[in-house]
Amino acid sequence: MKKVTLITGGSRSGKSRYAQTIAMRYGGTRIFVATAEPVDEEMRARIRKHQAERAELFTTIEEPYDIGSAIASLPPGTDVAIVDCLTVWLGNLMYRNERCDVTAPPIQRLLGILDDPPCDVILVTNEVGMGIVPDSEMARRYRDLAGHLNQAVAQKADRVAFMVSGIPVMIKGEKD
Amino acid sequence: MKKVTLITGGSRSGKSRYAQTIAMRYGGTRIFVATAEPVDEEMRARIRKHQAERAELFTTIEEPYDIGSAIASLPPGTDVAIVDCLTVWLGNLMYRNERCDVTAPPIQRLLGILDDPPCDVILVTNEVGMGIVPDSEMARRYRDLAGHLNQAVAQKADRVAFMVSGIPVMIKGEKD
Amino acid sequence: MKKVTLITGGSRSGKSRYAQTIAMRYGGTRIFVATAEPVDEEMRARIRKHQAERAELFTTIEEPYDIGSAIASLPPGTDVAIVDCLTVWLGNLMYRNERCDVTAPPIQRLLGILDDPPCDVILVTNEVGMGIVPDSEMARRYRDLAGHLNQAVAQKADRVAFMVSGIPVMIKGEKD
Repeated sequence: MKKVTLITGGSRSGKSRYAQTIAMRYGGTRIFVATAEPVDEEMRARIRKHQAERAELFTTIEEPYDIGSAIASLPPGTDVAIVDCLTVWLGNLMYRNERCDVTAPPIQRLLGILDDPPCDVILVTNEVGMGIVPDSEMARRYRDLAGHLNQAVAQKADRVAFMVSGIPVMIKGEKD
Repeated sequence: MKKVTLITGGSRSGKSRYAQTIAMRYGGTRIFVATAEPVDEEMRARIRKHQAERAELFTTIEEPYDIGSAIASLPPGTDVAIVDCLTVWLGNLMYRNERCDVTAPPIQRLLGILDDPPCDVILVTNEVGMGIVPDSEMARRYRDLAGHLNQAVAQKADRVAFMVSGIPVMIKGEKD
Repeated sequence: MKKVTLITGGSRSGKSRYAQTIAMRYGGTRIFVATAEPVDEEMRARIRKHQAERAELFTTIEEPYDIGSAIASLPPGTDVAIVDCLTVWLGNLMYRNERCDVTAPPIQRLLGILDDPPCDVILVTNEVGMGIVPDSEMARRYRDLAGHLNQAVAQKADRVAFMVSGIPVMIKGEKD
């Protein structure tokens, strides 16, 4: 069985770097599934910076919506795939359909493929529910959805790391 | 001595479900002290959904203000009580008295009863202080109060679980 | 080698109190480097309250900008210094220069001195990235900077404690 790892934590807590550190232990073909869609210059700059940092180490696939199908159709022989990140992806889904919840087909496709993925998968997500309740109803909906998705993915994952100040705290499974 | 358990974590991190999982290990009489007051349709829908989910497993008592007295006067023979949740309760108290702090009588009554509760008690709360400082002075007051209360309850608790993505991380005491 | 301890966590999670508890195990000279600058009455009240609480136990040095140099020039014979806190300090730096990042000279001076500090140092910081993405671009910049700094300091620290509801969870190194 292939191994599923979830890496969660706050913003700028070292999640992506830790995902890449784990993935670099694999020889062969490493795929990076990038979920971000550049909607403004600030994001374009972030995306360019991140792509430059991982160039030559990963083959990047950009997939802002249907990441379950993207994982299902990874090239044969892929050793490991990073999905970075689930919370940005949820933002894309809600931008298309504000009322979406965990029963939405793209979310169900992701959860389905995680039961038997074609290669080891490392998913990056964010903890977004430890601040005060947001004023905006859409923000409350978003953090509900993110929390529900994180729970569902963590349940399927073999390992879950919670990042705090760059330190991976294993809260499910063992470090390699 | 009866056992006090505190379950904390972000929004939608699986706190209530974990509280109910623990409580279901008890036979006999299980009480659910619900602190939420429906103030709008969004909340009424959440409350109805939660009540339906636990029907037949728990006897529900609604007590938005004086949860210390509610615990003190639980029916004899109660085996376990869940209080869900402290942060909503603090919101109710502040709605009545914006300046309230941990010295407020209802808070002191709760802290007092936790020294020697009539049955095992499982309290659910939220981590609300890991976002950026809120703009609103009242929101800052609220998160100060929630932080102080969480510390005071955690100190009295035999066990504290910190929920991350649905996973209980024991940070005080041991899992059953 | 002198020991560096980082204490992180949400607001009102008991970080400062835990820093002082650790520092009180030292005899001799204890210094408290306070980074807060009172900009309004709310802050002045908080600062006065905190100073009163630690009077006679610590010698306080107020340094809102150049805390690296403040540590480098501590009086000979200092046994332990608390820096409380890094996130307030970052706010001061950004108030002077909104575009500042971890390459800013005061930040580099702090990181440099932590490689070989003149005494044991206990730094207090905040987790600020576990809420939803802030609307304000400056707030996003601030939480990026705080996250990057926390990672850099945690990497240099011998011990990192993550505070949750007043409970120190050691995520790097061991408790004394």
